Amino acid sequence: MNSQEEVRDFIVNGHNVYLKHLSLDCVIFGYHDHQLKVLLLKNKGGAWSLAGGFIKIEEPLQDAAARILKERTGLDKLFLQQFHTFGLPNRSIRTDEEIKNLSAIAKAPIKKGHWLLERTLSLGYYAVTEYSKVTPIPDYFSEGCEWWETDNLPEMFFDHKEIAIEALKALRLQIYHQPIGFNLLPEKFTLPEIHDLYETILGKKLDRRNFPKKLLALGLIKKLDEQKKIGAHRSPYLYKFDKRRYDRALKEGIVLAF
Amino acid sequence: MNSQEEVRDFIVNGHNVYLKHLSLDCVIFGYHDHQLKVLLLKNKGGAWSLAGGFIKIEEPLQDAAARILKERTGLDKLFLQQFHTFGLPNRSIRTDEEIKNLSAIAKAPIKKGHWLLERTLSLGYYAVTEYSKVTPIPDYFSEGCEWWETDNLPEMFFDHKEIAIEALKALRLQIYHQPIGFNLLPEKFTLPEIHDLYETILGKKLDRRNFPKKLLALGLIKKLDEQKKIGAHRSPYLYKFDKRRYDRALKEGIVLAF
Repeated sequence: MNSQEEVRDFIVNGHNVYLKHLSLDCVIFGYHDHQLKVLLLKNKGGAWSLAGGFIKIEEPLQDAAARILKERTGLDKLFLQQFHTFGLPNRSIRTDEEIKNLSAIAKAPIKKGHWLLERTLSLGYYAVTEYSKVTPIPDYFSEGCEWWETDNLPEMFFDHKEIAIEALKALRLQIYHQPIGFNLLPEKFTLPEIHDLYETILGKKLDRRNFPKKLLALGLIKKLDEQKKIGAHRSPYLYKFDKRRYDRALKEGIVLAF
Repeated sequence: MNSQEEVRDFIVNGHNVYLKHLSLDCVIFGYHDHQLKVLLLKNKGGAWSLAGGFIKIEEPLQDAAARILKERTGLDKLFLQQFHTFGLPNRSIRTDEEIKNLSAIAKAPIKKGHWLLERTLSLGYYAVTEYSKVTPIPDYFSEGCEWWETDNLPEMFFDHKEIAIEALKALRLQIYHQPIGFNLLPEKFTLPEIHDLYETILGKKLDRRNFPKKLLALGLIKKLDEQKKIGAHRSPYLYKFDKRRYDRALKEGIVLAF
């Protein structure tokens, strides 16, 4: 949405376009150089929130997730993964001030029974990107987008902070069963680079020896006959993902323990 | 629901009681003696389905899952775990015959716009029980309940077969991160017994030596100074779960690889 008129139409007529009782929130993790961050939008009202929206009446969920992320942040081509549906009965209760703001935009009082005041569950989706390579663009509802450190999140709109924390837990479990890194590392990388990626996402230390052994044993990465020049006495070997095995592992799953 | 009159009221007035667009389906796995089965209900129409229902307007999801399971099968006190929300736009399209049946019970034609004809997403929940210890009771909609082998499921209502298959995948991932077995094994058990439980759920062979080592290393099980008498020359040691560590592992998660 790009204008107040579009927002008015959304408030007044949205129930003819979107499924009632259901929203969808995207938790976008950004990895770069020892850091894992999460993308938050600053609403014009001042609250921090996830990139969320509503599902169209006939829209597949995966399409809804991609559209909402694109509309709210300009980001696309991310693999969004559903991880949990949040449904506490009181999770979406709006404050009097929020209702007043909605009424002002709608130019009519928003009352009990209005679709935006009903109990709304949220389908949580997450994705991981390399945050130095993307530039999120705030939409009409937001005055800005910012990457926040995952262990230092601000207070957030509705239960969005809990959704972000649960997404991080889901990502940390996923990493044991699906390969990660193809879009987060350079095409050729050193073992310390992939080791750092996994340590950063998991938020814990991994064994320097066991870790690469496992990835090599699964055939996910292969050693190249090429070294990276870091200094006079440091030239670690480069590795790359075996794309065929990586894709198969994505589909069939793996079991890792480091 | 126990009578045709209650069903009529549900069809005609259910939209005042339940959230539109949302249902909840329970996949109940039963483990017993080398076998993993799943509980299906046979609808009076003849179709096999999961134990499903709708969420009340103000009802917490966990309460809804427990209530629906109890209403549909009589089972309770199972730990139901949400695993995925199913939302293909066409997943809940009813056949002409189903609509005719609904109309007959409602004593009025069910038409476009009726709450039971709208797109409905389903929140999937699963639980595991020891099936020789429970007796499911069919409700008014069903003519029976049966335990089916997970690798030999019949054709099912809507997308219930896909939901059951996805639940099994979720259970198989969960077992690497949460302990299992406390309610599925006798209080004192042998290593072959717990080994069999894990193999049956995972549907694959596990190393005879590594497997118990991991459980012991995590402190989940402990060896008792007591042996089981199986025959003149077979008296394996008995083990039991360390309940404190087991509960902590449930809460904090573990990482297993066998």
